[in-house]
Amino acid sequence: MSTKALLSRSEDFSEWYNQLVIRSELADYAPVRGCMVVRPYGWALWENMTAYLDAEFKRTGHVNAAFPTLIPLSFFEKEKEHVEGFSPQLAVVTHGGGEELEEKLVVRPTSETVIGYMYSKWINSWRDLPLLIVQWGSVMRWELRTKLFLRTAEFYWHEGHTAHATAEEATAEMRRILDIYEKFSLEEAAIPVIKGRKSDSERFPGARITTSIEAMMWDKRALQAGTSHYFGPNFAKAFDIQFLDKNNVRQYCETTSWAISSRMIGALIMVHGDDQGLVLPPRLAPIQTVIVPIFKSDAEQSAVMEVADGVFAALQAANIRVKLDDRDNVSPGFKFNDWEMRGVPVRIEIGPKDVAKGSVALARRDRPGREGKSFVPQTDLVATVGRLLDDIQSSLLQRATAYRDAHIHEPTTYEEFRKVVADDWAFVWWCGRAECEASIKEETRATTRCIPFDQPQQSGDCIYCGQPANERVYFARSY
Amino acid sequence: MSTKALLSRSEDFSEWYNQLVIRSELADYAPVRGCMVVRPYGWALWENMTAYLDAEFKRTGHVNAAFPTLIPLSFFEKEKEHVEGFSPQLAVVTHGGGEELEEKLVVRPTSETVIGYMYSKWINSWRDLPLLIVQWGSVMRWELRTKLFLRTAEFYWHEGHTAHATAEEATAEMRRILDIYEKFSLEEAAIPVIKGRKSDSERFPGARITTSIEAMMWDKRALQAGTSHYFGPNFAKAFDIQFLDKNNVRQYCETTSWAISSRMIGALIMVHGDDQGLVLPPRLAPIQTVIVPIFKSDAEQSAVMEVADGVFAALQAANIRVKLDDRDNVSPGFKFNDWEMRGVPVRIEIGPKDVAKGSVALARRDRPGREGKSFVPQTDLVATVGRLLDDIQSSLLQRATAYRDAHIHEPTTYEEFRKVVADDWAFVWWCGRAECEASIKEETRATTRCIPFDQPQQSGDCIYCGQPANERVYFARSY
Repeated sequence: MSTKALLSRSEDFSEWYNQLVIRSELADYAPVRGCMVVRPYGWALWENMTAYLDAEFKRTGHVNAAFPTLIPLSFFEKEKEHVEGFSPQLAVVTHGGGEELEEKLVVRPTSETVIGYMYSKWINSWRDLPLLIVQWGSVMRWELRTKLFLRTAEFYWHEGHTAHATAEEATAEMRRILDIYEKFSLEEAAIPVIKGRKSDSERFPGARITTSIEAMMWDKRALQAGTSHYFGPNFAKAFDIQFLDKNNVRQYCETTSWAISSRMIGALIMVHGDDQGLVLPPRLAPIQTVIVPIFKSDAEQSAVMEVADGVFAALQAANIRVKLDDRDNVSPGFKFNDWEMRGVPVRIEIGPKDVAKGSVALARRDRPGREGKSFVPQTDLVATVGRLLDDIQSSLLQRATAYRDAHIHEPTTYEEFRKVVADDWAFVWWCGRAECEASIKEETRATTRCIPFDQPQQSGDCIYCGQPANERVYFARSY
Repeated sequence: MSTKALLSRSEDFSEWYNQLVIRSELADYAPVRGCMVVRPYGWALWENMTAYLDAEFKRTGHVNAAFPTLIPLSFFEKEKEHVEGFSPQLAVVTHGGGEELEEKLVVRPTSETVIGYMYSKWINSWRDLPLLIVQWGSVMRWELRTKLFLRTAEFYWHEGHTAHATAEEATAEMRRILDIYEKFSLEEAAIPVIKGRKSDSERFPGARITTSIEAMMWDKRALQAGTSHYFGPNFAKAFDIQFLDKNNVRQYCETTSWAISSRMIGALIMVHGDDQGLVLPPRLAPIQTVIVPIFKSDAEQSAVMEVADGVFAALQAANIRVKLDDRDNVSPGFKFNDWEMRGVPVRIEIGPKDVAKGSVALARRDRPGREGKSFVPQTDLVATVGRLLDDIQSSLLQRATAYRDAHIHEPTTYEEFRKVVADDWAFVWWCGRAECEASIKEETRATTRCIPFDQPQQSGDCIYCGQPANERVYFARSY
C-alpha cells in the first residue's frame, strides 16, 4: 500500500488515470504485451455491469451461448471490409499439439464470421427467426498503443449477434439495443451519452449502419461507450445464412451485432473520478458503504465494534454491499484515504462519541470534505444510507450532464470550430462528404462522433466547405 | 427438427450420446477441429451450474478475476512436471499484428503459471493471505480424439487458485473445495460421487496431492467430475511467490488450484439420460416445466389457452422456469417427444377435458409412460409442481446411487478383478506401487480412480502382486 498522494487530474490526466487504475487495484499489467489482468475489485465492478445487461438482454428475448475462441483465418476473407478492418490486428495460432497446423487460426477479434457460419447451419425457416444470441467473453486485437481498460490487446465484452427476416426487424433490433445501452449508461453508470449513427468512415468493418453511444470524459475527449451495428444481408451472403420465408422462398437473413466492453470501466473512472481517486456510482460499486470504526482504548474498541458489527449486519441484511474495515495495522485516517481512492460511495465512521450519542458520521464520496459529511442517528440508518446512495447516484449523473453540456458548443464558423475542438465538443452542420471529415480530422484531430437520431427540421451550411448540409453532427477528439 | 428416433443406449452408448447432444441442441461442432459451440440450451444449463458454484465460492470468501488468455511459452518451463504434462497439448501463437512475435505465446491450457507470476507481484505480507481467486472462462488443450463436452480442444470451466501461509491451510482449502464439489454434484446434479486422492500417476502435473470426485456413467465407465490440487510450495518456488510472515521472515506460499468443467454436462447426460433422450435434474434444468396445450377447434383453443396462459403466469411468478409450447406447426405428440428428448423434468398437458374438469395432466420425465403420469387439480398447481420437481430431484439421485452401488464390487482375486473391471468398478487393496497400477492398466484398461479419504483400519493384500497393502482404491475404465 502506497501512501503517496495521487497526481491531480489537471497535472497529467493520462498519468492520473494510469496510476489510479493500478493503485485502486482495478487492474494490472499482464506479462504479455498489451494485455491486462482485471483484479478482483475491477472484476466485481464488471460483474455488476454484466448482471444488469444480461438481465436486460434476457428480458428482451436474448439467450447466451459460447462460440470458439479460435477462428479459421480464411473466415475473415469472406467479407471484404471485415478482413481489411481486422487483418492488421490478428493474433495467429500456427501450431497445435506440437505440429504446424494445416490451416492457420486466429484468436477471435470479434465473432461475426464464426457465428455466421453456425447460423447458416441452424437457420432454415422463418420459424427459426429472429435468432437472438449473446456471447460473453474476451476478444483479442493486437494493439500497439495500449491503456488499461481503454485499449488493450485482450478485452472483455459481450457481443450480441442476431438474425432476422426483414431489414425493418434488424434495424429495430439495432435501435432497441442502443436504447438498452443508453439506459444502462444513464441509470447504472451515471454517464450521459449521445445516441446516433456513425459516419461512413467510422463504421464497423462490414456494417451498413453503425450506431453508438458517445460519452464525454473529464478531459473532454469523447469515448465510444457502446456500439450497435446493422449489417443488412452482408454477412448473410458471405456465410450463406438463408431461410425459407412464409411463401417458401429462400431469402438472405438480415443481421446485427452489438457490444459494450470493459472500456466502460475506463469511462467510469474518467467521468466521475477526482483528485482523491475513483468515484463509483452506487449502483455499480462493488462496495457501496464502508464502515470505519475509530477507537483508542480496549474499552472504546469493544463499545465501538459492537455498534459497528450491528450496523454491518443491518446493512448487509438490506442487501447493501457493505464492508467493515477492521484492519488493525493502519489508522482511521489512512482508511479514509484508502476507501476514497477506491471510490466507495458512502463511508460510515463510528467512534466513542458516536456510540455515546447514538449517531454515526456519514461521508459521501461525491462531495469530499466537510460539505459531504453529516451526523445521523443510528436508528433508521439503513433507510438513511439507502436514500443517500440513491442521491449520490442521481447527483453523479446530474454533475456529469452539466459538465458535458457546458463543454458542447455550436460554432458557426470554421475558425470558431477549430478553437472549440481543441478542447471541447462541437455540434455543427456537416455536408456528409468524407473529404470534409478527413480534412477536419487532419487539421484539428477531431473526428465525427455521431450523427444524432433527432435532427432539426431545417438545413444549414457545412462547417468546413460551406455547401448545403442536412445533418448536424458532433465533432470531438476521442479515445 | 428430425423425427427419427434416437438410438437406444444399449445399442451404441457412444453414438447415442453424440446424437443426443446434437439433437437436443446442447452443443454443436465448431468449424475448428476439436472445438465445440455450446448452444443456448447447453449454455443455460452451464449458467445454472455456474450460478450455484459462484455463490458457494463467494460465500466461502473467494473473489473472481480475469487473467490473460495468452501466456508466454517460457512460463511453462518454470515447473518441470507442468511443462512435461502440458507441452504436447499447447496451441501456440507465433504472429501478432502481422509480425512474428519475439516470444511465442500459448493459448492457456490452465493458468497456474500466469497467476503465479501475478501473485508474486501482489503478495508481500502474511496480511495478503490467504488470496482466494477464481477465474471463469475457457482453456485450450490440443486433443486428438474429441467428444462434445467430455473432451474438446477448448472447454469451459472455473479455475480456482489460492495462496496460503501454511501447508495446513492450503490442504484444508483443497478439501473445502472438494466438499463443495461433492455437495454440488449430489444436490444439484443428482450425481453420487466418490471423493478421494489420486494415485501419483494420475496427479495433475506439478501437484503434490490431487483429489477428485469420481462418478459412474450409465455404461459404468468412470468420469472425473472435479479436481482439487495441493501444490505445496512447488509453484511458489517456480514463480517466487513469497511473503513476510509475522516474524518478518520470508517464506514461500503454499498454493492450490481446482476446477469443474463443462464436462459435467456430459456427466449429466450419461448418468441420467435414457432411450427417450436427456433427463435433466430440476435444479439445473433450463426449463423445469413445459406446458403443452391440446385442442382441435377454435373454441377449444381459446378455452385451453386461457387456462394454459394462467398456469404459465402462476408458475413463472413462483420462479419456476416454465415454457408454454404454443407452436402451431407440430402436433402435441411431437411436442411430447421433443421435450422428453430435451429432458424437461415436468410436462403439463392441458386439453378441453382438463379445462372442463378443472384439472391438468402432469407427466414426470424420470418415469416415462403411464407410471409417471397423474391428473391433478388446477387449484394449488404451483405447490404440486414444486413438490414434484423436488421429488424428481431426489429420485434421480437415489436411482443413480442405487445403480452405481450395484456396479461396484469387491473382488478378492485378480481373476475376479479382471472380470469385474471389464464392465464395472472394483474396490480393492492396492500396494500403492506404480508398477502394479501400470500392469493392471495394460492388462485390463482399468485405472485407479481415487483412493477414498475414509479408509478401513485394517490392511490387506494388493489385488495384483499380493504384497501388503494399506489402502483400498477404486479401479475402473474411465472417460
